[in-house]
Amino acid sequence: MSQVTMEKIVNMCKTQGFVYQGSEIYGGLANTWDYGPLGVELKNNVKKAWWKKFIQESPYNVGLDSAILMNPQTWVASGHVGGFSDPLMDCKACKSRHRADKLIEDHGDDIVADGWTEEQMMAYIREHNIACPDCGAHDFTDIRQFELMFKTHMGVVSDDKSAVYLRPETAQGIFVNFKNVQRTSRKKIPFGIGQIGKSFRNEITPGNFTFRTREFEQMELEFFCKPGEDGQWYEFWKQYCWNWLVNLGMNPEHIRQREHSPEELSHYSNGTSDIEYRFPFGWGELWGVANRTDFDLKAHMKESGANFEYQDPTTNEKYVPYCIEPSVGADRVTLAFLIDAYEEETLENGETREVLKFHPALAPYKVAVLPLVKKLNEQSLEVFAELSKHMMVDYDEAGTIGKRYRRQDAIGTPFCVTFDYDSLEDKKVTVRHRDTMEQERVAIDELVEYITSKIQF
Amino acid sequence: MSQVTMEKIVNMCKTQGFVYQGSEIYGGLANTWDYGPLGVELKNNVKKAWWKKFIQESPYNVGLDSAILMNPQTWVASGHVGGFSDPLMDCKACKSRHRADKLIEDHGDDIVADGWTEEQMMAYIREHNIACPDCGAHDFTDIRQFELMFKTHMGVVSDDKSAVYLRPETAQGIFVNFKNVQRTSRKKIPFGIGQIGKSFRNEITPGNFTFRTREFEQMELEFFCKPGEDGQWYEFWKQYCWNWLVNLGMNPEHIRQREHSPEELSHYSNGTSDIEYRFPFGWGELWGVANRTDFDLKAHMKESGANFEYQDPTTNEKYVPYCIEPSVGADRVTLAFLIDAYEEETLENGETREVLKFHPALAPYKVAVLPLVKKLNEQSLEVFAELSKHMMVDYDEAGTIGKRYRRQDAIGTPFCVTFDYDSLEDKKVTVRHRDTMEQERVAIDELVEYITSKIQF
Repeated sequence: MSQVTMEKIVNMCKTQGFVYQGSEIYGGLANTWDYGPLGVELKNNVKKAWWKKFIQESPYNVGLDSAILMNPQTWVASGHVGGFSDPLMDCKACKSRHRADKLIEDHGDDIVADGWTEEQMMAYIREHNIACPDCGAHDFTDIRQFELMFKTHMGVVSDDKSAVYLRPETAQGIFVNFKNVQRTSRKKIPFGIGQIGKSFRNEITPGNFTFRTREFEQMELEFFCKPGEDGQWYEFWKQYCWNWLVNLGMNPEHIRQREHSPEELSHYSNGTSDIEYRFPFGWGELWGVANRTDFDLKAHMKESGANFEYQDPTTNEKYVPYCIEPSVGADRVTLAFLIDAYEEETLENGETREVLKFHPALAPYKVAVLPLVKKLNEQSLEVFAELSKHMMVDYDEAGTIGKRYRRQDAIGTPFCVTFDYDSLEDKKVTVRHRDTMEQERVAIDELVEYITSKIQF
Repeated sequence: MSQVTMEKIVNMCKTQGFVYQGSEIYGGLANTWDYGPLGVELKNNVKKAWWKKFIQESPYNVGLDSAILMNPQTWVASGHVGGFSDPLMDCKACKSRHRADKLIEDHGDDIVADGWTEEQMMAYIREHNIACPDCGAHDFTDIRQFELMFKTHMGVVSDDKSAVYLRPETAQGIFVNFKNVQRTSRKKIPFGIGQIGKSFRNEITPGNFTFRTREFEQMELEFFCKPGEDGQWYEFWKQYCWNWLVNLGMNPEHIRQREHSPEELSHYSNGTSDIEYRFPFGWGELWGVANRTDFDLKAHMKESGANFEYQDPTTNEKYVPYCIEPSVGADRVTLAFLIDAYEEETLENGETREVLKFHPALAPYKVAVLPLVKKLNEQSLEVFAELSKHMMVDYDEAGTIGKRYRRQDAIGTPFCVTFDYDSLEDKKVTVRHRDTMEQERVAIDELVEYITSKIQF
């Protein structure tokens, strides 16, 4: 993994059809990306694996899908209006614009400027005589706060009253629905509400491919528990997220747990921990798990007048639940799985093969059907038709079998099924395994079960 | 179906947790809706069923997931900048605002004002002396065109150069990627590219619950074929969409095919046909299937300079492909399935039961596990754990079994599994069927296969 560069990953993604530059024919649009035929399957598989473990198999959690456009008062309550901004400063010499916290973090090793005041940042930049990274001058403007939410207008008139925002996180859609969900699902504390959906942040420095983009997809769980039991649930979900990654094949040596220091913590948080992944550009946040206490529910109670108190049905005790929030970016974790799966193997014969060693549950195609020769297309397409009722299947009839194996290795397909002349007689096909490159004969009418049993998560 | 009102559906959706009003605690936000725990499962199942039949099982089609934010030139090429607007007029007397085409369509039966010029609309309104529906006056302003795209700004400065739009359709994300997808998937004509994703239109008259909303999700396929073969593919996809609905349990008597008249057709279209559903508020468009010719690809070629010509690999013939577009709203078709499934049945004993007769593939929960008494929770939860590895399972321990059956009927769960005292001995459970209300004993270790085989689509 250490040898793979971002450049190689970006090129591979484009060539294979995982990810293209957004609006490419028009010269792109500032770090937007489109998922191609393989990318959409990979990302969908990541989302399905999250839903399966966080919603479907959980006796605690249920799902939600709230709208991207919300009543603007939501963002007053959450603190995003007013409080959700980047500290920007301009270089007076070359007019380039920079995030003050990034200038500081890029200057000193292991410095985290999260949670610093503007004064602290200004002082640090002066003390350490930090220069403009573009022109080298030492002459910055004061810090100004730059609003991170995308604003638009709903309805016919564009004025302040019609202003709405694209949500900067899916979490608030969960909090405002706390009572609706609790009542209709008749869940008792502890229980959680999860959702997957797009969020938007007008970042001034998006970058590193799909790692940081202005439009991104989140997978968030808000887990509500009794105050006092939040500590144990915080630990529970930290471990649960870690296990999810490792069980999906992520190398545990490429991830680490980083507990936020007291200075970094939001004022309402009882603890926040990031699972970080070792990207080619350095360690980057993958999954934030935060103990948000009762901050969000109480903020919405105050702003809206809604009652989010919960009454314990056995003790009759009333309280506003505490909340643990494991939040992960679907694009970001998809990128991490892609990087982690990438290998260039030197084979015994000295050749190199490029292979994406995805967990089978994540692989875009579970199996590729390969007719040995075009003459066997008709029978091979029958195998395709039967398999594709159950899973994503590729079909490839071009080139030598060896070349087709390599092509499937390079896109991470765990199984290749070759239909040859013998298949006409013995009703068996050759199944070739991506990782071991071993081959075996399997009866066609046992193929669905054979493969299904090997791709579970 | 004829007896169900929208009011009943909206209330049922709220009570059961299918759909809540968006931002409800803040008084809502103009016809936005949030999918609750049952609604998100139902809608996800609709999306999965579309993906399965339009992408996974199709030997022709591949998927895509392009960004919502696109380079604004996209919308110049597509005609949305400038051409994508609603004809609005104000009542001078009461200042209310109206869509001219809707005034006309509401005035006369079977009139479709699509494609009319402003002059035609003004003339019709004068001739027929159409009154303001709010105050009855006959004094309208001229028609003004109201831009339907949501506009926002990307980056630090809010000026014309930073303006971007929320996409009003997913289709253009497919067209701009035509060559990227064709090259990387090595598909030959005919082939299609499908995607599911959110789109946004700043409609001035959203309404009828989730039927028409400003934020909505589309499931679109753009199917590229050789000019001359477009007629047969147009017929093919019309039939394919119809079959998809009927195979998912939609009553064929509740849908109809409506071919657009020549006057309604867009200037570039060789044919457009809507599948309409008989909603409680009248027939409404569900699925538009359009023969868009080579209009879109050529428009982007002209605007971007990209070459979207396709060279036939056997004949070497070069051409710009024609395109057939079956486009359906995920929210809208989910609503149709919900309405179509709703029944109030009078039982033999004279009681009424409310039941959602979903196709099992669409049902939010496939099965509910019911311990006969709480004492059997431990063993019942083991059954839950095993089943939930394979499907969405509800667990309900409250109330009599009869009451729990009714609750599951009302949310459309096709199977209930009751764990009783006998189950401890014979390792079997009672499986009760939603539609027939019949019961049978099934061995616990055959349960997964028993149910799986009955919920396929």
